[in-house]
Amino acid sequence: MMRVGILGGGQLARMMALAGAPLGLQFRILDVSRDACAAQFAPQIVADYTDRDALERFAAEVDVATFDFENVPAESARFLAERLPVFPNPKALALAQDRLHEKTLFRELGMGTAEFAAVEHLEELRAATARIGFPCVLKTRRLGYDGKGQYRLYSAADIEPAFAELGHAPLILEAFVAFQREVSVVAVRSRQGEFRAWPLTQNWHASGILSASLAPAPDPEGLADKAFAAAERLAHQLDYVGVFALELFDLGGGEFLVNEMAPRVHNSGHWTQQGAMTCQFANHLRAVVGLPLGSTELLAPTVMLNWVGDLPARETILEYRRGYFHDYGKTPRAGRKVGHANIVGATHDELADELERLADRLDRHAQIDPVLKVLR
Amino acid sequence: MMRVGILGGGQLARMMALAGAPLGLQFRILDVSRDACAAQFAPQIVADYTDRDALERFAAEVDVATFDFENVPAESARFLAERLPVFPNPKALALAQDRLHEKTLFRELGMGTAEFAAVEHLEELRAATARIGFPCVLKTRRLGYDGKGQYRLYSAADIEPAFAELGHAPLILEAFVAFQREVSVVAVRSRQGEFRAWPLTQNWHASGILSASLAPAPDPEGLADKAFAAAERLAHQLDYVGVFALELFDLGGGEFLVNEMAPRVHNSGHWTQQGAMTCQFANHLRAVVGLPLGSTELLAPTVMLNWVGDLPARETILEYRRGYFHDYGKTPRAGRKVGHANIVGATHDELADELERLADRLDRHAQIDPVLKVLR
Repeated sequence: MMRVGILGGGQLARMMALAGAPLGLQFRILDVSRDACAAQFAPQIVADYTDRDALERFAAEVDVATFDFENVPAESARFLAERLPVFPNPKALALAQDRLHEKTLFRELGMGTAEFAAVEHLEELRAATARIGFPCVLKTRRLGYDGKGQYRLYSAADIEPAFAELGHAPLILEAFVAFQREVSVVAVRSRQGEFRAWPLTQNWHASGILSASLAPAPDPEGLADKAFAAAERLAHQLDYVGVFALELFDLGGGEFLVNEMAPRVHNSGHWTQQGAMTCQFANHLRAVVGLPLGSTELLAPTVMLNWVGDLPARETILEYRRGYFHDYGKTPRAGRKVGHANIVGATHDELADELERLADRLDRHAQIDPVLKVLR
Repeated sequence: MMRVGILGGGQLARMMALAGAPLGLQFRILDVSRDACAAQFAPQIVADYTDRDALERFAAEVDVATFDFENVPAESARFLAERLPVFPNPKALALAQDRLHEKTLFRELGMGTAEFAAVEHLEELRAATARIGFPCVLKTRRLGYDGKGQYRLYSAADIEPAFAELGHAPLILEAFVAFQREVSVVAVRSRQGEFRAWPLTQNWHASGILSASLAPAPDPEGLADKAFAAAERLAHQLDYVGVFALELFDLGGGEFLVNEMAPRVHNSGHWTQQGAMTCQFANHLRAVVGLPLGSTELLAPTVMLNWVGDLPARETILEYRRGYFHDYGKTPRAGRKVGHANIVGATHDELADELERLADRLDRHAQIDPVLKVLR
């Protein structure tokens, strides 16, 4: 019986525990929040990620550790890694935590990225905007997620307000990319270095938060294989173990830029729970505990709809024969991811018919219509 | 957030909790055993099923109650039902607990059963064997499962030993049925009376314990529709809510006898976790909490292999692209159900190829070959 410790007790930890139970794994969560939703299904140590005593206790109670949250301090990850196997390794985690280091590595591995520049002072920001041009995006190098810690600059007038808002931390300025669509590679690498990717996923965001995903993403220009190859290079370079996501901007004509890497199971991989032979949560755990990786093949076209802020009536989803509801057991709150649904269709047409019904019944045209446009 | 209480904390409760989490349900287990395997994923009250204080506390902590174990005292079920909704209802539970009442009802509903007779004294047993003939099976009316509480009689010489072993409790004598195969209907009925059955399942037993299941069962003689109709009549008669199984003896020529009903999710429905659009655990909970029933349609032919006593190397199962392992997190022990695997194939041929590999690799020909014979 292997015991898996998860740093962070949100919905990703929760879904890991649910997917890992059939593998015979037991779980322990470490999270500072007293109502961590994963704790409904796994015992929790309530403590800060920097609490050495708690980390020591946590390490003693589990056989291997992993993450639900990518911004666990790298030092805490290293502290744990001196005591037990930690996957992904702390170096990979640290790299993904810093947009500047991450983009620098992407470039070194031959991947295209948006133009970028490190920014620490206001003068550097001025110089960087002069080089990169407007529009551009100022971001904190660390601790950003779901569009937080970002400021869009449209002209020189935005430079001072942007710096006033974010200048307390090391920054990166990035050129604004006029992309055609956003896609992601969700992939897994085993302890032995085996690499597998799920079918390419197309993603839609609203207010910086993932709103919907479609898998497989239509791929008339043969983007997927190049994207998988990039993800594999990156994973091998980092000696990465577990699931990760690589977010890409599709520029059209088979060209893409790499935006960022998430060193964990990823919201754009939630569709795999119903749409793939093995879901990302099970495969992450298989990788982390050293079991054979499961197949990442498609079972059927699937759309994932994210529930942000509040949940729709679950009956509306469950009435559809292939509608699957995923409630994270959280208290609804504006901007909070509280659940998702996976809608599966035997064909794109069946999927589109059902999405049309849902857009009407749930009154969620803004969320669903962009997906429909791609399916029809 | 609905809280579901489960009486019994074995693998069925465990798989209910795992399947119910995505529906936003929270669970509480009541079980006398301190190492109930469901307690790894749901908080447990450690108490006897007859402990009124514990039942009171349990009732206060949940919104609805159900069962992982069919032999919960009917009085405890009634005690709970005075305090909160309990599904299946205590009357249905009580009926299924008594082989004599159960078979009597089957007959009243027009279903064929083996000849049977109530037996309380040795003289009654003699008279019953004279009427029913040999071979026949003496069973305790209550508390039997997995072949326990049964004695086969081949001649008059077996009468006294059989009665000496089982005569401490009310008994039923049943004619021995020369069936061609064993099949089961796993079905669900909602609070509103909607009935759905999964595809007919063929089952193999070893030492009275389920060994393997195949779904869909080959059905050249059109047994399934008649079996579903019988299950539906029974469910309506009992005002049954939730999942149940009806075990049948296939006599050939489209004829069958009903053996028994299990008023709960059932081992012969475990294949639905990977082989059906909605699994039995999710549908049981949907019924119990009043959500719409999910589709019971087949996704792909599936074989369930039970692990009794110990688990095989999980790698051997997981290496197959559609091999799914279900470890119950129990300590292995002779005769104990400790897990199962679901093996899925796009076709019967693919399934058979994989089963051949497994029979060799796991050295489990006795378990797997009978299934293979049906598939080839």
